[in-house]
Amino acid sequence: MNAYLHKKAETQIDTNEIVARYQATRARSIALAEGLSDADQTVQSMADCSPTKWHLAHTTWFFEAFILVPHASNYSPFNERFFYLFNSYYEQAGPRHPRPQRGMLTRPSASEISQYRAHVDEAMAELLASGTPDARVTDLLILGCNHEEQHQELLQTDILHLFAQNPLKPALRSSIPIDSGNATTSLKWIEIDGGVVEIGEDESDPNTGFIYDCESPRHEVLIRPFKIANRLVTNEEWIEFIQDDAYHTATLWLADGWATLNNENWQAPLYWEQRDGTWWSMTLHGPQPLNEKAPVTHISYFEAEAFARWSGKRLPTEFEWERSARLHESAASREESHPDLLMPRPATGVAELEQLYSDVWQWTGSSYLPYPGFKTAEGAVGEYNGKFMCGQFILRGGSCATSPGHSRRTYRNFFYPQQRWQFSGLRLAEDN
Amino acid sequence: MNAYLHKKAETQIDTNEIVARYQATRARSIALAEGLSDADQTVQSMADCSPTKWHLAHTTWFFEAFILVPHASNYSPFNERFFYLFNSYYEQAGPRHPRPQRGMLTRPSASEISQYRAHVDEAMAELLASGTPDARVTDLLILGCNHEEQHQELLQTDILHLFAQNPLKPALRSSIPIDSGNATTSLKWIEIDGGVVEIGEDESDPNTGFIYDCESPRHEVLIRPFKIANRLVTNEEWIEFIQDDAYHTATLWLADGWATLNNENWQAPLYWEQRDGTWWSMTLHGPQPLNEKAPVTHISYFEAEAFARWSGKRLPTEFEWERSARLHESAASREESHPDLLMPRPATGVAELEQLYSDVWQWTGSSYLPYPGFKTAEGAVGEYNGKFMCGQFILRGGSCATSPGHSRRTYRNFFYPQQRWQFSGLRLAEDN
Amino acid sequence: MNAYLHKKAETQIDTNEIVARYQATRARSIALAEGLSDADQTVQSMADCSPTKWHLAHTTWFFEAFILVPHASNYSPFNERFFYLFNSYYEQAGPRHPRPQRGMLTRPSASEISQYRAHVDEAMAELLASGTPDARVTDLLILGCNHEEQHQELLQTDILHLFAQNPLKPALRSSIPIDSGNATTSLKWIEIDGGVVEIGEDESDPNTGFIYDCESPRHEVLIRPFKIANRLVTNEEWIEFIQDDAYHTATLWLADGWATLNNENWQAPLYWEQRDGTWWSMTLHGPQPLNEKAPVTHISYFEAEAFARWSGKRLPTEFEWERSARLHESAASREESHPDLLMPRPATGVAELEQLYSDVWQWTGSSYLPYPGFKTAEGAVGEYNGKFMCGQFILRGGSCATSPGHSRRTYRNFFYPQQRWQFSGLRLAEDN
Amino acid sequence: MNAYLHKKAETQIDTNEIVARYQATRARSIALAEGLSDADQTVQSMADCSPTKWHLAHTTWFFEAFILVPHASNYSPFNERFFYLFNSYYEQAGPRHPRPQRGMLTRPSASEISQYRAHVDEAMAELLASGTPDARVTDLLILGCNHEEQHQELLQTDILHLFAQNPLKPALRSSIPIDSGNATTSLKWIEIDGGVVEIGEDESDPNTGFIYDCESPRHEVLIRPFKIANRLVTNEEWIEFIQDDAYHTATLWLADGWATLNNENWQAPLYWEQRDGTWWSMTLHGPQPLNEKAPVTHISYFEAEAFARWSGKRLPTEFEWERSARLHESAASREESHPDLLMPRPATGVAELEQLYSDVWQWTGSSYLPYPGFKTAEGAVGEYNGKFMCGQFILRGGSCATSPGHSRRTYRNFFYPQQRWQFSGLRLAEDN
Repeated sequence: MNAYLHKKAETQIDTNEIVARYQATRARSIALAEGLSDADQTVQSMADCSPTKWHLAHTTWFFEAFILVPHASNYSPFNERFFYLFNSYYEQAGPRHPRPQRGMLTRPSASEISQYRAHVDEAMAELLASGTPDARVTDLLILGCNHEEQHQELLQTDILHLFAQNPLKPALRSSIPIDSGNATTSLKWIEIDGGVVEIGEDESDPNTGFIYDCESPRHEVLIRPFKIANRLVTNEEWIEFIQDDAYHTATLWLADGWATLNNENWQAPLYWEQRDGTWWSMTLHGPQPLNEKAPVTHISYFEAEAFARWSGKRLPTEFEWERSARLHESAASREESHPDLLMPRPATGVAELEQLYSDVWQWTGSSYLPYPGFKTAEGAVGEYNGKFMCGQFILRGGSCATSPGHSRRTYRNFFYPQQRWQFSGLRLAEDN
Repeated sequence: MNAYLHKKAETQIDTNEIVARYQATRARSIALAEGLSDADQTVQSMADCSPTKWHLAHTTWFFEAFILVPHASNYSPFNERFFYLFNSYYEQAGPRHPRPQRGMLTRPSASEISQYRAHVDEAMAELLASGTPDARVTDLLILGCNHEEQHQELLQTDILHLFAQNPLKPALRSSIPIDSGNATTSLKWIEIDGGVVEIGEDESDPNTGFIYDCESPRHEVLIRPFKIANRLVTNEEWIEFIQDDAYHTATLWLADGWATLNNENWQAPLYWEQRDGTWWSMTLHGPQPLNEKAPVTHISYFEAEAFARWSGKRLPTEFEWERSARLHESAASREESHPDLLMPRPATGVAELEQLYSDVWQWTGSSYLPYPGFKTAEGAVGEYNGKFMCGQFILRGGSCATSPGHSRRTYRNFFYPQQRWQFSGLRLAEDN
Repeated sequence: MNAYLHKKAETQIDTNEIVARYQATRARSIALAEGLSDADQTVQSMADCSPTKWHLAHTTWFFEAFILVPHASNYSPFNERFFYLFNSYYEQAGPRHPRPQRGMLTRPSASEISQYRAHVDEAMAELLASGTPDARVTDLLILGCNHEEQHQELLQTDILHLFAQNPLKPALRSSIPIDSGNATTSLKWIEIDGGVVEIGEDESDPNTGFIYDCESPRHEVLIRPFKIANRLVTNEEWIEFIQDDAYHTATLWLADGWATLNNENWQAPLYWEQRDGTWWSMTLHGPQPLNEKAPVTHISYFEAEAFARWSGKRLPTEFEWERSARLHESAASREESHPDLLMPRPATGVAELEQLYSDVWQWTGSSYLPYPGFKTAEGAVGEYNGKFMCGQFILRGGSCATSPGHSRRTYRNFFYPQQRWQFSGLRLAEDN
Repeated sequence: MNAYLHKKAETQIDTNEIVARYQATRARSIALAEGLSDADQTVQSMADCSPTKWHLAHTTWFFEAFILVPHASNYSPFNERFFYLFNSYYEQAGPRHPRPQRGMLTRPSASEISQYRAHVDEAMAELLASGTPDARVTDLLILGCNHEEQHQELLQTDILHLFAQNPLKPALRSSIPIDSGNATTSLKWIEIDGGVVEIGEDESDPNTGFIYDCESPRHEVLIRPFKIANRLVTNEEWIEFIQDDAYHTATLWLADGWATLNNENWQAPLYWEQRDGTWWSMTLHGPQPLNEKAPVTHISYFEAEAFARWSGKRLPTEFEWERSARLHESAASREESHPDLLMPRPATGVAELEQLYSDVWQWTGSSYLPYPGFKTAEGAVGEYNGKFMCGQFILRGGSCATSPGHSRRTYRNFFYPQQRWQFSGLRLAEDN
């Protein structure tokens, strides 16, 4: 077990707090799936996506396989077959159902999955009630909650993708008039000094809160002076990009991006469509006319990079992004969360540097690679992040689908450059 | 409208009989789907298959689009979007949802489809109650019932395919001990004379009951003397074929079959697996040990043809099959139906020529091609059969999943030579 | 060894005639490849095609593997590796180089292949000079010559396909002005009586000349009265079909054809392109303006069948075609051969039933299936035809690329319904 | 035109030197293709590779399109069609023949390409003889020579790939006994200090020799203390990796690497095969027994990265590699070149840090991304490097196929992580 997983062993652990954290996380997953039928929860719309039901079961399996089986004596699994069905990608945790076949599992039903969740929750409650938990258990429990929060975001982006395939274009939430705001702060450039700065957090530092292994070790990076935009790129700006024929101009694109664009016939961000000259987008509230002041989302790295080139700017590196947040994020930046809106909101001027954590993930120009000195944990948990460090790009910040409190300044999200079904957008930077 | 569709116009039509036929057909579809959850009814396990829910809706659309919309004044569709969602392949009936995307339709729910069925059934009842129906309506109604019966069979083979993808291997019907019998009549060869014989039925003949357009016109074919097996090839015989290394012997196979076998890594019929040296097969009752006396099923044309070569015999042509049935089918042959068993049964000696209609479809050596003088009907209904006359082989008879009374001696079923998910088997023939 | 292969054993064999036949066949292959560089002879433009060099080597391998190795004592192979490289599809003749990789063989060079041919020719000459050859040898030699003639046609169609991929559009033969004629006989319908007729030839009949196994046994078929067109469908008629929007009218097409057309974006026959409003076609003389009076060629079965439907006619069956030829072919029909033209010619009225053997192969509505009583030969030679009897359609007649004297009334050519790179066209028929 | 392309304008240009450079480069390409037939030069063995002939023509097109057409008045192109045929990927230089179709070009012949080369060489000679060339011409000429040198390396790796597909396994060079040496220096670790160091060169600096745009700007990077291996990983060490079952141990691999390994069924480096228990490898001298002391080559990034993990070390970053070379490369390191050997050689102890530039390219752990402040040149030349900065990894050093003098300490080579057909290997590093 890696150091960070028991770093809190030395500090006072409040079991009540842990129990509350566990219960809140588990309850939120159930709340997100509310209104989804058994069928909605079962279908897999592409290999990148997973069914809702699978998310609900896999996050439960995580607690069962990593905490209950090794640490709860007398634990009796709900169903032995679930170890095979709901392992995602942990080679060391045994064989598993192939990812592209997750949508074949019409059984177990959503209702059985609820029972499975209840069974595990009960066993977890018993374990936690049986005395101050072992530091390893605590660490794994916190990891499991964070893991479940990641799946909470995926659950939403995956159900949106599924619903977008349906000509009836259903909504996850009732499509009442949404006041997602209309104000947009004018674009301002924040100047940041260069120098050797600290990046990441250290998992061995007792003052560090929860982080993923890939955010560590904290290390020094030399950055150059630069400027960063105070807000995200908007739909209105993206429409200009489209109108300037950018989707048909080879010189704006990376070679791989141009090939993808042509193979996939991209003409706009994912989910956009024109109706009588107006742009609409599929959302978790069903199809909605585009809010021009809101940040553009559902774009690939290729599109973000091309937009930056077209605008004469560039994407920030992940280090520049983190440095900017460290210097300029404010209480206001962190309080923008609007978890019920399920859509990104326009900038409002609430903070000097805004739209950091609650609207769209922001593509950076950095590849997802290990920090110097990065080590994976022993055992299956060590497969959590490290083995994906190839071919993906870093996104920073957080989105309207990110669980409240889940993200932070050092958080490293990552996706392949062609992927678009996340709430992904961009913030511009330029050399100073 | 093609002749056959109103051939009964000249005869007395009994509306009550038609209403009863309609109601019985519609009720049987519902009964078949009993026990299937919304999720079970939604997922599409491969492009060849359709979701249960889609079968239930599409068969309803058939009555709506071809009878209610043109013939029922004041008919108000349940949902205008369903014309797009549930048209299968009728180009003349407008654009439609792509076949491989049928499994994306988590909405409408199974319950909404039930309401859709009720809405159409009510409108059909009103139409039929409003006076003696037009001959065109009657003909289309009978066609619609036969169409729905075809989908009843597909519903069962498609759900079997879906359940076979699930490591939990669910059963459509509770897996109570099945007495599917154990007796096997020893193989006997029935000699049939050659000569010019009549094949097919004539849709313009007022004495002809319902037939599909592809079974017509009745025409003369010259056949040569031959012998046909009194029963189907059994699982026991197929195991010998496997044990003789047939799946690894190139010279037994058609070139396309050998390529398919190697690409797909076929080692046995679809759904077979070995457990501790015993062959099991996935069935609608879940996994079951193979009944060695029962007819082999879930084989492709390639496998049937290779087996025939291996055994020194051949497949009958579709004309030989039809001729044999005409001469030797008996009341007993036709009474073998066992619609609740959902599995093929061993031969029992009940008839001279047995296992014709109620166990497995029988691959013939004939390509699916039009009969001399074949003409398609005007309009979308004309697309029913004719446009598939390319690349497929004829199967004759019927299966344990065929709706009772649906098949007949002249019935022409057809599938591609590599397809295996139907209840397909073989009966041998040889030259006299 | 199958009966037909030594049927001549009982008759007088003239060795000189056989030697002459062998030498003429071998020389013609060399002549066809004249002007092709080593590179031209090496590249494979699609998996269906083979390199010229491969054709030249494989036809040589046929004599080596089937005659010299078993029948010529002391024969020393030119290169043992060639048995692997130049076996095409004979499973019983051992492992072989994968078909789609034939174009990787830049070595052996064209010049080494010439030496290989000379080596085998010399050994064959020695064998034939050593006394009256064994009947089996004679039969195999005649088969080998016919086999090589088939490859002579493929060599031409394959090089045309290769050259068509090159933007420089090279010509196999210098593009001197081609007088391929301009007259077209007006379309006439020849009436043919129905009845039981003989089809095919019998390989056991001592009076039968060379035939392939698939043309046998001679057998009776019942045909109905019909009419057949005296000439082929022309380019001019095909342009009308295009102009009537046939390539965008779903109802004219078989379902598989419509899918293929859309996937491949077919808008016209293969090799056609429009230049300033005029149709041109790639030919063995390079790009040429279309001769509107010449027969349409490079069409698939799907296109032929759709054209027939569009014109209110149908394709003849292979039996109707053979019967028509038997009754109406004339010396003139058989003398139309124009092997140096390398293009199909317009009808000229030279015969009542014309354009049978020397312009384009004619798609029929018949699937390629065994004749009743068909048996394959023992050993690798038995794989010649039988294992391809699935999924293909019969073409009858012959083309401008068919070796003179190669074809005959009973000849059964066959290709998949989507293939277009042969000189394939159509002749219409209709019911009487 | 980007700054670096005319940075020498301010310095004295020696035309004779330039002419000599041009001639030597051009002559070397011809020499490399010696012994290759027209066919060898034409075939494309996979989309990543290009035919020899295409390399020879494309490098010529580069001078024609970028120097002669814009700068040589009265220049008359050899063949206008070649602008289409031999443009590689320059969108701004007009449409081009699709990359995967390069192998279809049996015409123009190798001999015509020679004439094309002579035509362009003559025009270049005239241009250079007409007075001191314009700085832009000089810069483009130097770029063109470097460009041609890159293709010289590809020409060799591409022909090796082609020959490896041929069961005859031809050799580019006669397989005379090769003394590629047997000594191996034992592995030593060189310690390198951390700190802020300079990376890259500056194209605007008049003292900078030729560099590619992606090596600029020179900039500061913070590195941490580390150790680097004095020599490359050997075949012997790789065999241990294989014997430890590394190709079947999921936990050693990146997720994408593990998927690739399984899809492609990798069991060893590309071109390796076992014969009677001994490892052989396909080389430019044909199949050869593996020299265990020589550096491993033809490995992917995935394999290099897995080997490093297995050995408890890691790959160096590209900055660490460059820093190591700056500090520890010696005259001896740079004099190892053995351009006629065509194979990597064992370490010999000739230098403290050896095998830098003349054996195999060395995968680093760095993604190919732009340096801070990187700008592409105006016009088509600007597409040279920049648009490929996505998804690829950096290799540093040079190989046995690199043109002498072509590489340098700041050189950034790049390939996708799954590509193996280059002479790619690895050097280990570890944290200090």
